[in-house]
Amino acid sequence: MSKCLIVGGGGFIGSHLVELILKRNNKKLIVAGRHEKPKTLINKNIEYVCIDPSNLEGLSQVMDQCDEVIDLAYATVPKTSFDDPILDISANLPFTVNLLKLASQKSLRRFMLVSSGGTVYGTPLRLPIDETHPTNPLSPYGITKLATEKYGLMYHHFQSLPLLIVRPSNPYGPGQRGNIGQGFVSTALFAGKKQKTVKMFGERGTIRDYIYIKDLVEGILAALENGIPGEIYNIGTGIGMDNRTILEKINHHIKLDGFSLDIEVLPLRPFDVSSNVLSAAKLTYISGWRSQTSFEEGLAATWKWVKESTP
Amino acid sequence: MSKCLIVGGGGFIGSHLVELILKRNNKKLIVAGRHEKPKTLINKNIEYVCIDPSNLEGLSQVMDQCDEVIDLAYATVPKTSFDDPILDISANLPFTVNLLKLASQKSLRRFMLVSSGGTVYGTPLRLPIDETHPTNPLSPYGITKLATEKYGLMYHHFQSLPLLIVRPSNPYGPGQRGNIGQGFVSTALFAGKKQKTVKMFGERGTIRDYIYIKDLVEGILAALENGIPGEIYNIGTGIGMDNRTILEKINHHIKLDGFSLDIEVLPLRPFDVSSNVLSAAKLTYISGWRSQTSFEEGLAATWKWVKESTP
Repeated sequence: MSKCLIVGGGGFIGSHLVELILKRNNKKLIVAGRHEKPKTLINKNIEYVCIDPSNLEGLSQVMDQCDEVIDLAYATVPKTSFDDPILDISANLPFTVNLLKLASQKSLRRFMLVSSGGTVYGTPLRLPIDETHPTNPLSPYGITKLATEKYGLMYHHFQSLPLLIVRPSNPYGPGQRGNIGQGFVSTALFAGKKQKTVKMFGERGTIRDYIYIKDLVEGILAALENGIPGEIYNIGTGIGMDNRTILEKINHHIKLDGFSLDIEVLPLRPFDVSSNVLSAAKLTYISGWRSQTSFEEGLAATWKWVKESTP
Repeated sequence: MSKCLIVGGGGFIGSHLVELILKRNNKKLIVAGRHEKPKTLINKNIEYVCIDPSNLEGLSQVMDQCDEVIDLAYATVPKTSFDDPILDISANLPFTVNLLKLASQKSLRRFMLVSSGGTVYGTPLRLPIDETHPTNPLSPYGITKLATEKYGLMYHHFQSLPLLIVRPSNPYGPGQRGNIGQGFVSTALFAGKKQKTVKMFGERGTIRDYIYIKDLVEGILAALENGIPGEIYNIGTGIGMDNRTILEKINHHIKLDGFSLDIEVLPLRPFDVSSNVLSAAKLTYISGWRSQTSFEEGLAATWKWVKESTP
């Protein structure tokens, strides 16, 4: 049975990935995170290690026991990266380079870097966006994410690191807090629950490819099992939806529970790319994976979690 | 008369650029460099300022007096960037981001970022390489150079910074020391002069686009005068030459002075891209600029300088 290390596994994507791997029960798991104890403990039997970015000796010893690594660690999000692009560099790039270097010295079967299909492409020249589309990121976060891809491919090229890259679109689902400047769906659902105003920039907002978190983590594992080292795989639904449509769907859904949305329309923000919809045809071709969950189903599950969650 | 600030103007490219601008006498000049005093003082009348990367206040005041900035500053070279990719990040990215941010707050006519056509493309998919070719750098230096381009384009996009990017091929010429792991022509000429062995990796080495430094700085000014903000321009000759051919030409030339080359053929190095030849058709189209100097002419001038230079 293979043993998989998830670096940065304590977050939104990581916790769902852990849950799926435990359900399939075909891999042993070690989770590594920044916090001394994991924020969400899904299962007491999972080994958890705390990462010290300035001393990777502990991580090195953990990696010796593993044959797969999934790197989800990132210290910033797109919106906050504008406030401090230097921190976005210093908190992410040296750590990722050190991790790749370390991984290159081990005998791994796969190293998966989770990049960002929502930010590395920038303004689309064609839709949906495939992996050969030019990468012109328009946020510090997107720029450093793209740089981490390039470092990964360099270690693949020179050190034979069996690296795969996935570029997810915008995930949503239970567990996403929506209070860190990303996650439009959960931000809107929490606003509905708390009777706060939802801000939308532009009459219809922006068009994004919202992928349900359970589909995303299935896609990550599909790429891990079937992907070819050195290759990049988009993970998305191929369906674009604007903010207005989403808010209408949310309003319709939460009305059943007696809630409603209060929407404030603000001017378009210059840094928002108007459209981002990914083609995952390459991943489908090699693995058969497809996004399965309709937005209505995903929304219902997310709202259930939001309703029941403590503030 | 416009006033031009050259950041990192004390090096090989910078000193030739200064010389050309003084010759044309159509711009006032300020040179900024890392050293307290410039290494090469071409003209006592040039204003020189020393940059403190951790305190850009001085540079900000200088920039207030200028309407053009040319950024040549870089603390690393491709070869050494492999030894310490973290230093390559920390010594270059924060400084460049701060410089771009500062420049975005001024009223500049142009900001030119000098990138690297020799490293940002990686393994060529077609030759000669034009600006739409995918960018897959295979060195830490190439990765950070590409990141600086992306930051520059981001500040162009959001802050209207009138940014141009040039991507030069491999420059050679008088003033290139050839002792810092780059500059094959000058490294070979100095080796010939000092009767040291020249190392070549592979039977014919690699193919590069060697541009004479005077042509390169003419190209930089052609892009500065005629380029469109937000655009990228290659600067190269469009002609590829392998190391073996260059060494034969050098041997033939220095023989006239009683010198000869001693060549050692070593195995190919995995990190050397086999070919890199740039198409500068885009720059030629907008400005009429073309590389003018034949390799034989450039070689003769460089050898003259090498012969006369102190070790």
